[in-house]
Amino acid sequence: MNPDKNDNVIQQRRIRIDVAYDGTAYAGWQVQPELVSVQQRLEETFAGVVGHSVKIHGSGRTDRGVHAKCQVAHLDVTTRIADISLQRAVNSRIAPDIRVTRLITVAPDFHARRSAHGKEYRYFVWCGEIMPPEKRLYATHCHHLLDVPAMSKAAQWFVGTHDFAAFSANPQREIDTTVRTIFKFTVTGRGPQVTFAVQGNGFLYKQVRSMVGFLMRVGVGAERPDAVKELLDAANPRVARVPSAQPQGLFLWRVWYGGSRVRVHPGKNPR
Amino acid sequence: MNPDKNDNVIQQRRIRIDVAYDGTAYAGWQVQPELVSVQQRLEETFAGVVGHSVKIHGSGRTDRGVHAKCQVAHLDVTTRIADISLQRAVNSRIAPDIRVTRLITVAPDFHARRSAHGKEYRYFVWCGEIMPPEKRLYATHCHHLLDVPAMSKAAQWFVGTHDFAAFSANPQREIDTTVRTIFKFTVTGRGPQVTFAVQGNGFLYKQVRSMVGFLMRVGVGAERPDAVKELLDAANPRVARVPSAQPQGLFLWRVWYGGSRVRVHPGKNPR
Repeated sequence: MNPDKNDNVIQQRRIRIDVAYDGTAYAGWQVQPELVSVQQRLEETFAGVVGHSVKIHGSGRTDRGVHAKCQVAHLDVTTRIADISLQRAVNSRIAPDIRVTRLITVAPDFHARRSAHGKEYRYFVWCGEIMPPEKRLYATHCHHLLDVPAMSKAAQWFVGTHDFAAFSANPQREIDTTVRTIFKFTVTGRGPQVTFAVQGNGFLYKQVRSMVGFLMRVGVGAERPDAVKELLDAANPRVARVPSAQPQGLFLWRVWYGGSRVRVHPGKNPR
Repeated sequence: MNPDKNDNVIQQRRIRIDVAYDGTAYAGWQVQPELVSVQQRLEETFAGVVGHSVKIHGSGRTDRGVHAKCQVAHLDVTTRIADISLQRAVNSRIAPDIRVTRLITVAPDFHARRSAHGKEYRYFVWCGEIMPPEKRLYATHCHHLLDVPAMSKAAQWFVGTHDFAAFSANPQREIDTTVRTIFKFTVTGRGPQVTFAVQGNGFLYKQVRSMVGFLMRVGVGAERPDAVKELLDAANPRVARVPSAQPQGLFLWRVWYGGSRVRVHPGKNPR
């Protein structure tokens, strides 16, 4: 073996993957003992394709039953397989409820979590009396009508840099601060469907579900919109009046890096 | 017991139900030995609510894996329970992949199949390279781009009264005729999604999936649009060039009666 002949040397490289998944069948993103996670399935499948064990680092965790339109992760591989072939090999082997929507070689210092500039989550609520069967795993059913303008007004209190202690669950792990910055928070209604879209620099454990859970209480008239401000200002730990909305309505929608936003670009028909 | 005291007599009545279902977990609409069907689940659930066995008659069958936005059926019940309470009781007991979206008392001569004036089916195809996980059970993945104008042109040959022998499977039961009338057939593209919508007075076994299967062959350039006319005119039994499209893209969309079309009316948000 001659290490000078570069074309014969298999070099390690870092790849970034964008991943869409239906979280219904998984115990969440992160590997957990005796449970099936999205990360575990990806690690097993990549290992089978590249022929060595791999460790996949996601931009963050998602809970049991939470979905992703675009989770981002990175891993190091030592293989001659080209990016596009690697993507196709993984997608052909892994279950159809997980899809690698993009796979590219990146600089060795790219880090899915540390390099992220921001994230967007979307939360879907269905307010019709009857939950359409094909939506039941991808939206939360609310039997009451929700006051969209009141929820939208309340959501604007979240925008900016605040201590979100009152809107997150005890993470059972050490965190240095509960201060986070929300860039944008929209609440829109379209027929019976209400969509919450929130962008921020990072999110605490159960933060999105706690914010949406409280906004839904505003939506049914149980809380005033400016109660959000009071809870943020007090910055006490979360209490019962801030419930966590159910997981199946939540999607990690996108993660962006270096100023450029990352979206899933689906194919287009010619016309 | 005094039969003259009408208010104390529980009278039998005929009810019509509109049913939405996710067909993924079922062996189709119709009861089959040792398999779980939508009809069976509905019959078991209604029997538990009204306290006597019931027989449910659908507007027609749907195959394994096929969904319904609005199947219509009728059944006779002997109960004092009001329509709205009956609907709620059934929906609270049955699995969330089956929903009774409407329940009304109808005239005793209403018959879900014989009284139907027409039906609409919709078929969804996803042509992006990556199938979004949350669509995988409700659309068919096509790796090729489809020529929507060519498919639309071909679909117009189906409109009218024709012998559809070449576009249906052997039903393994006696049927008097393979002549049916198609009222309307549209093919539309929106981003990577192609939607086929067909309305007719009735459909043969696997007719919709055969028509869509052939249109997709037109869409990839394997057949000319006017080949539809040739196959209809010849009226020979179905051959291999008319494949049956996969079941998971198909939805029974609505059934209409007496000139008035039946739709699912979801609830609306106040604004």
